[in-house]
Amino acid sequence: MTPRVAVAGASGYAGGEILRLLASHPGVEIGAVTARTSAGRTLGEVHPHLTSLADRVLEETTADTLAGHEAVLLALPHGRSAALADALPPHTPVIDCGADFRLRDPADWRRFYGSEHAGSWPYGLPELPGARAELRNATRVAVPGCFPTAATLALFPAHAARLVEPEAVVVAASGTSGAGRALRPHLLGAEVMGSMTPYGVGGGHRHTPELVQNLSRAAGERVTVSFTPTLAPMPRGILVTCSARLRPGTAADGGEEEVRAVFEAAYADEPFVRLLPPGRWPSTASVLGSNTALVQIAVDPAARRLVCVGAIDNLTKGTAGGAVQCMNLALGLPEGLGLPVNGTAP
Amino acid sequence: MTPRVAVAGASGYAGGEILRLLASHPGVEIGAVTARTSAGRTLGEVHPHLTSLADRVLEETTADTLAGHEAVLLALPHGRSAALADALPPHTPVIDCGADFRLRDPADWRRFYGSEHAGSWPYGLPELPGARAELRNATRVAVPGCFPTAATLALFPAHAARLVEPEAVVVAASGTSGAGRALRPHLLGAEVMGSMTPYGVGGGHRHTPELVQNLSRAAGERVTVSFTPTLAPMPRGILVTCSARLRPGTAADGGEEEVRAVFEAAYADEPFVRLLPPGRWPSTASVLGSNTALVQIAVDPAARRLVCVGAIDNLTKGTAGGAVQCMNLALGLPEGLGLPVNGTAP
Amino acid sequence: MTPRVAVAGASGYAGGEILRLLASHPGVEIGAVTARTSAGRTLGEVHPHLTSLADRVLEETTADTLAGHEAVLLALPHGRSAALADALPPHTPVIDCGADFRLRDPADWRRFYGSEHAGSWPYGLPELPGARAELRNATRVAVPGCFPTAATLALFPAHAARLVEPEAVVVAASGTSGAGRALRPHLLGAEVMGSMTPYGVGGGHRHTPELVQNLSRAAGERVTVSFTPTLAPMPRGILVTCSARLRPGTAADGGEEEVRAVFEAAYADEPFVRLLPPGRWPSTASVLGSNTALVQIAVDPAARRLVCVGAIDNLTKGTAGGAVQCMNLALGLPEGLGLPVNGTAP
Amino acid sequence: MTPRVAVAGASGYAGGEILRLLASHPGVEIGAVTARTSAGRTLGEVHPHLTSLADRVLEETTADTLAGHEAVLLALPHGRSAALADALPPHTPVIDCGADFRLRDPADWRRFYGSEHAGSWPYGLPELPGARAELRNATRVAVPGCFPTAATLALFPAHAARLVEPEAVVVAASGTSGAGRALRPHLLGAEVMGSMTPYGVGGGHRHTPELVQNLSRAAGERVTVSFTPTLAPMPRGILVTCSARLRPGTAADGGEEEVRAVFEAAYADEPFVRLLPPGRWPSTASVLGSNTALVQIAVDPAARRLVCVGAIDNLTKGTAGGAVQCMNLALGLPEGLGLPVNGTAP
Repeated sequence: MTPRVAVAGASGYAGGEILRLLASHPGVEIGAVTARTSAGRTLGEVHPHLTSLADRVLEETTADTLAGHEAVLLALPHGRSAALADALPPHTPVIDCGADFRLRDPADWRRFYGSEHAGSWPYGLPELPGARAELRNATRVAVPGCFPTAATLALFPAHAARLVEPEAVVVAASGTSGAGRALRPHLLGAEVMGSMTPYGVGGGHRHTPELVQNLSRAAGERVTVSFTPTLAPMPRGILVTCSARLRPGTAADGGEEEVRAVFEAAYADEPFVRLLPPGRWPSTASVLGSNTALVQIAVDPAARRLVCVGAIDNLTKGTAGGAVQCMNLALGLPEGLGLPVNGTAP
Repeated sequence: MTPRVAVAGASGYAGGEILRLLASHPGVEIGAVTARTSAGRTLGEVHPHLTSLADRVLEETTADTLAGHEAVLLALPHGRSAALADALPPHTPVIDCGADFRLRDPADWRRFYGSEHAGSWPYGLPELPGARAELRNATRVAVPGCFPTAATLALFPAHAARLVEPEAVVVAASGTSGAGRALRPHLLGAEVMGSMTPYGVGGGHRHTPELVQNLSRAAGERVTVSFTPTLAPMPRGILVTCSARLRPGTAADGGEEEVRAVFEAAYADEPFVRLLPPGRWPSTASVLGSNTALVQIAVDPAARRLVCVGAIDNLTKGTAGGAVQCMNLALGLPEGLGLPVNGTAP
Repeated sequence: MTPRVAVAGASGYAGGEILRLLASHPGVEIGAVTARTSAGRTLGEVHPHLTSLADRVLEETTADTLAGHEAVLLALPHGRSAALADALPPHTPVIDCGADFRLRDPADWRRFYGSEHAGSWPYGLPELPGARAELRNATRVAVPGCFPTAATLALFPAHAARLVEPEAVVVAASGTSGAGRALRPHLLGAEVMGSMTPYGVGGGHRHTPELVQNLSRAAGERVTVSFTPTLAPMPRGILVTCSARLRPGTAADGGEEEVRAVFEAAYADEPFVRLLPPGRWPSTASVLGSNTALVQIAVDPAARRLVCVGAIDNLTKGTAGGAVQCMNLALGLPEGLGLPVNGTAP
Repeated sequence: MTPRVAVAGASGYAGGEILRLLASHPGVEIGAVTARTSAGRTLGEVHPHLTSLADRVLEETTADTLAGHEAVLLALPHGRSAALADALPPHTPVIDCGADFRLRDPADWRRFYGSEHAGSWPYGLPELPGARAELRNATRVAVPGCFPTAATLALFPAHAARLVEPEAVVVAASGTSGAGRALRPHLLGAEVMGSMTPYGVGGGHRHTPELVQNLSRAAGERVTVSFTPTLAPMPRGILVTCSARLRPGTAADGGEEEVRAVFEAAYADEPFVRLLPPGRWPSTASVLGSNTALVQIAVDPAARRLVCVGAIDNLTKGTAGGAVQCMNLALGLPEGLGLPVNGTAP
């Protein structure tokens, strides 16, 4: 029997993208679709692009409406997942797109989110060493944040292979859907079109500790991360430009072969990460609507740094696609089922 | 056995979109992929978003490379299709995205294209009355232009039902991919971003006679069309704003119920045309990457005009999606196979 | 002594543009700058582009703060101007960017705005026949709406010369700043980028009666207008595509010379309207930040219609620039003082 | 008598911006306006936004057409300036927007430009310590590149005060006008809208040695720079996100006061650089069309790095505005004459 999947928080951008992917997913059926203030409205009103689901009505997000499904995907504001998850059967896979269960260190949580730590769940980035086994048939999964997904995929092989010093600099550009659907003046179209601006500069962005956690785990040592996100004039997409100082022994000849070999090995069997051939660079347009991460590297011999660039769609691989990938693993389905690898361009 | 399909002119935007759709089409297999000046390059270089086809190499566009397929899709510059089609077996379905075989009147062709008319093929807009039967198992199909697709779908039921006078005014906004991939100064990103500008004003655009042909055929009388395309600062999408003077008897009470009923009947069973509920308006974002046309109508009692608005993705329903829809019909496959109905938004 | 000018409603987009123009205006000095909910904040916070005024503090919008200036510019939401204007000395020029005093027919006002009509002031479009004399040294001026400015300038000479039938069709594309700074979901950057969508279709937009008023006045007969505005993915700019049926005697040979001569005569001495040479078309990028309106015309002999296209910056010529032009006239300054004619492009 | 200024290379984006600024400059008059392949065309054709100069005809770029002016501004492709400058009188100020005379080290020039070094001229960034005196009444000036302008202004006070280690990481986002007006496939509107992509990664961009030169000079020691430019979906604007490791003694308490004081001192008297108040961040929209650079800093205590962000308009402060600023100094005019400090937003 086809598993039925519920989606909570379906009125936001992440929820809409989950529904877009599930609507053409051949291995699951969409069950309850819930929201809070938008409950009672149709999906046609809330997500006019979801033509095939236009007449579906959003229900209230409660444990009751979410019960009785083979999996539940949560796309809620931070801090709302724990209570719901507690009310769902422990054997029902719950895939949480929120931040609540991503961080392992309660002090990190308190410092960046200001509330009590709810705990930590298996971290839903199957491409990290050892992660896939943990995620297969998992019943609780914390889907990574969009920036950590992009920057971790672009950088972690270098840290894991100790090619670079444990100090990364990450500058990211994100489409404005990354800021969500909340009404804030600086997100008005007239403000964002034609403009780039940074935010959360100086280590204050909530994705910083998650990135530190990922890279430190890969490196087996504490990695510091200087992370600066910027808002770019596009609806979707993340481009991360990451760099770290080369260790004295790495790329001593100034060439990139050694580094490339490490990245090739890391991604040889990954269906959703593609290391580009030399000389070509990732663009966010190339991954629009897809679950693909494009990665490229360059050695800067003069500055003695390794530069790693990655591009993802923040709503697909960065959120909803990552969640469906984890859901597939949790339900024992083929990992890539229903997930596009080709972008929609131009 | 799965039919193998060749794509000629695969390096352009239309060709790339055809490949994107075919790559996830469950009923066909991609055969030869050909180009002219890009022959020898990989699809990864030419269409970096087509990750699943990145290593495929473009062959030369010749009758030989296209031979031996169950269907051939042509995405060539105008004037190149006839010679190729002649060299292909008459029973092999050839789906032509070019203009060569769209117009029935040789005088129209000569006036707008300046060369000899190659002839006319079945017109690939299945939603037109009577068209679907002609397209099923057809061996030659002329896929409509992007603007005529949008404007015909938005307007034809009104003309067919004689709700309006035979004089339509159509103003269209198109994303810049509609102008193709040729290098022209006014298509540079710095020129188009933040700017709208018209072109082909005064009846000079080549899609004008095609639109006249479609609406006249629907109306059973000669319809004149004032058509003005504009270039909009977006990569994809067409929004058509059409209007025509209401006939004296139509909407005499100023209400739109009568008109709505006509449009509802016209589109009740169409999988790719959706008449929106009252009060909601089509947007190009809602159809991005999908084969859906969204349509809405309004009666303007003061101006005594019917306004019909339609939105499509110029590269999908407007070109490549329409072509695949016709290919499905030609091959006897379900009409909607492999064609997304949901857009990718925001 | 340099006249001091107050600006009320300075926190919105129109208010910000007025300040941008006044900051480099050689003939006036900026006096009180007021707002409602933003009172107490600095201009640096509210309009970060106004570097030269960054430390100015917004005062409360009251008759008291506005008193004692040589002119007062109002950029308030509709319905707020009358009370303020009444409290200002009758000899102090008040230039109102709101709609309150634009319409002459109280029935129009009630139908489109739903409240009591406050009256009508001299209409601030100096380019209309007879208008300039009325505006010179005027003490109360109603600045036109952005769409009526663009469409009136593109069309009125044709109606005034009776070249066309009294039935105009106007389709306009506007940058999203035209919708103001209010927080509405469909104005979020992620929604508007890459998308075009219509609104107020079927005659419902509040600028319709203003346009009817202008064209009827020019024609000396009642002109009906089918007006459809669309929201375009750009911060600023309006492109209007207007057309009307040619009268039987006009352009009988299908040529446009006769029409062009009429437009050339109409704009020969206008500093802010430029009829482009044949074959070139207005773009909104060309007028960004300037007070210029670019106009072009084409005769469509097959459809027997005249197509007139106009481009303005909705915030400059369409609002703030128009207001400063009227302020200059009211204060007896040279009409074009402080008003840029060149756009900022690309 | 008002000095007459010639502009060579007037058909490109930099040339167009120079003309836009000069057209409203109260202290100079535009003399010869020259180009190569566009010679004979009007400015109205080439730069449709320059309404006030629409009928001016572009002359051939030769020493003869440029002779007899009080100053000459060159906006030519790299490698063309030397020959022209040699043919102009040595006492006539020549302000070169090209790269030819920016670098002091011939080896740098050869490595990044592959030809013989033409020499070095006074470097036209008046904000650098000691530069202004050298530029006043200078007869030859090399205007900085757009990226070096932005990054130098954002970073140099930190290096000059030895707050940071001599290793800077600079990630820049540029509007696509920065790539010039040449026709290249990746600059088509359909490719750039909605997309971000890096280029010249790994130290290969030609602005790298210029940035190293500037920061090293400010620091009094060799500074290495890892520079990654990215192409952003906007016509204009540069946002630079720069960071460098704090020296052990700097910001030992994790606070930013000490750093802020250094930047405040550096920019206290600069008319075109504004250090924003704490908590506000530069955006490219805020400086559109202006000669202003907005700068902000943050200390990241966890990563022990100083992050400096700067925003400029690449065509104004980054090229043409910087050139006019230098021209003013060279002609003995007030440095800021004719240069807007306020951006055009939203």
